[in-house]
Amino acid sequence: MPVGTKGTVKGLTPGDLREVGVGIVLGNTYHLYLRPGSDLIEEAGGLHHFMGWDGPILTDSGGYQVFSLAQTRRISEEGVEFASVYDGSPHMFTPELTTRVQEDLGSDVAMVLDECPPANASREYHEHSLRRTARWAGRSKEAHGRRDQALFGILQGGLYPDLREESLARTVEIGFDGYAVGGLSVGESREEMLKTLALTASKLPAGKPRYFMGIGDPVGILQVIALGVDMFDCVLPTRLARHGAALTPEGRLNLKNSRYRRDFGPLDPGCSCEACTGYSRAYLAHLVRENELLGHRLVTLHNVRFTVDLCRLARCEIRAGRFEAWSRGWISRYEGSDHAGADELE
Amino acid sequence: MPVGTKGTVKGLTPGDLREVGVGIVLGNTYHLYLRPGSDLIEEAGGLHHFMGWDGPILTDSGGYQVFSLAQTRRISEEGVEFASVYDGSPHMFTPELTTRVQEDLGSDVAMVLDECPPANASREYHEHSLRRTARWAGRSKEAHGRRDQALFGILQGGLYPDLREESLARTVEIGFDGYAVGGLSVGESREEMLKTLALTASKLPAGKPRYFMGIGDPVGILQVIALGVDMFDCVLPTRLARHGAALTPEGRLNLKNSRYRRDFGPLDPGCSCEACTGYSRAYLAHLVRENELLGHRLVTLHNVRFTVDLCRLARCEIRAGRFEAWSRGWISRYEGSDHAGADELE
Repeated sequence: MPVGTKGTVKGLTPGDLREVGVGIVLGNTYHLYLRPGSDLIEEAGGLHHFMGWDGPILTDSGGYQVFSLAQTRRISEEGVEFASVYDGSPHMFTPELTTRVQEDLGSDVAMVLDECPPANASREYHEHSLRRTARWAGRSKEAHGRRDQALFGILQGGLYPDLREESLARTVEIGFDGYAVGGLSVGESREEMLKTLALTASKLPAGKPRYFMGIGDPVGILQVIALGVDMFDCVLPTRLARHGAALTPEGRLNLKNSRYRRDFGPLDPGCSCEACTGYSRAYLAHLVRENELLGHRLVTLHNVRFTVDLCRLARCEIRAGRFEAWSRGWISRYEGSDHAGADELE
Repeated sequence: MPVGTKGTVKGLTPGDLREVGVGIVLGNTYHLYLRPGSDLIEEAGGLHHFMGWDGPILTDSGGYQVFSLAQTRRISEEGVEFASVYDGSPHMFTPELTTRVQEDLGSDVAMVLDECPPANASREYHEHSLRRTARWAGRSKEAHGRRDQALFGILQGGLYPDLREESLARTVEIGFDGYAVGGLSVGESREEMLKTLALTASKLPAGKPRYFMGIGDPVGILQVIALGVDMFDCVLPTRLARHGAALTPEGRLNLKNSRYRRDFGPLDPGCSCEACTGYSRAYLAHLVRENELLGHRLVTLHNVRFTVDLCRLARCEIRAGRFEAWSRGWISRYEGSDHAGADELE
């Protein structure tokens, strides 16, 4: 799911998203609640209508932004108080409110309010927090009324296997349309993340979508797919694009690298997106160096296309029963290229 | 001519430009010479190929940027020395060099190097300068070799009728494929500008294109068309868009004005561009307030479409012999709206 933080995947129209094969986009409840306001979006006929996107939308609960952006916040059993990142004004998110806001936005999938503690929080904190998150999940479900909107629960528990199990049991007991693994990709190592995910994913109910929150690098996507994850989101492909980094099967290319100044070949010869078929690396490199809007737009289009195509390929290989071998080969090609190191962004 | 300063009309693809009916774009020799370099663009197969635009391109000579941007410059008979706006590196433009650079860029219309003095320069300065500009024009023509590229002369002379006549006579004597009126819209009043233009335009050779450099507001466009001008360029429509101001027949709308926050109607009901048919004023206002790339892109698309459509309408009315009456009515509607004042950008 490309991230459309404020009701737009930065630089792309809904038509662009459809053209590159995007099936679902993510909207940020925190931002939309504050700007332009979920009441305004409801008045506009909902987020789909407001932003002109008729495909599915998943909205997060806003909790992640409260915990990662807010300068001041106070958590209680009732909910979480925070100061707006825009103007410092005081607000409070409760499970009931964020459910209501997402109903107003009219997304196809809503998320329960959860607390996402940092990876290095104490075991005691994680234990206390996951239980409150489970109570909040119950209240979110209780408050949820829209029949045309799915509601997903979120698992927490840090890197503690028994706490992860407890979180899973409590959340599954409430019963949701899908389950998200939260609280990972928040500072721990990739190995710890995968170990914890493996443990959790294997015990999730069969037949319900599994959503890993916050992964978007190509290798990470394949690693979580291997563990049974169905959905994921991350700003990485779009944010990298705005910094001039393009995702290709040969690794990540930093278009600001001088080697592309006179490279008149296509960005990714195997890609049929507008950026790869209409322009040269040299032109894209020029746009990126000059911080031109068109550079942001074209590289974003490519990175989203690349990521969507990777997932499409993964689905084919899963169906054909070849995923593991294919994925191993793909990762080794991606990581083995001389671009992988040389072209990392500073 | 929308302005594609650095080889891109900010935010738009060549496909977008074609879709809104753009027939010709302007490229800035000063910027392209410095970044990415005209040698690199020549290597890419010329500016058309580099930027993916197969329609006509006019390049300016770079003189205007030298005189308006450069911190330090020294003018001599030979040419003008200046420091790059990018890195302060020293450069010199001569009539021969800027002709050669434009030949490398491969534009369809090239311009001679001229000096554009400020409106308040002395009569003596203007007299001296226009004569040097005429000598430079002769050298530009002498140096020009591409048969597939037109070369236009540029008239100067400030607001002095006799100097304008002298500049015209000297330039027409050399003989060019078209003539540009330069040195206006540089600080004088609109009345002085139109008076001087009227005097000059009436004496230009029939049958050669007449290009007024640097006008782009709707009323100004109609005013210079009324005086016989065929071509003009300005960053105004695209720059306004990036500041959130949209051009409509009812005047200029500042989308940051709170009146548009809950305005769910189209930006301009009479316009069939993507911005007007796919989104509401409220959504565009939200994007503009949040400084979203998509807002810049959509409003730019609309403003370019609006300006191109205005010129198309003007051509129809000229052919039908109704231009003057139509233009008067159009201007009074545009200026009479309550938007005209209230929605000006601060």
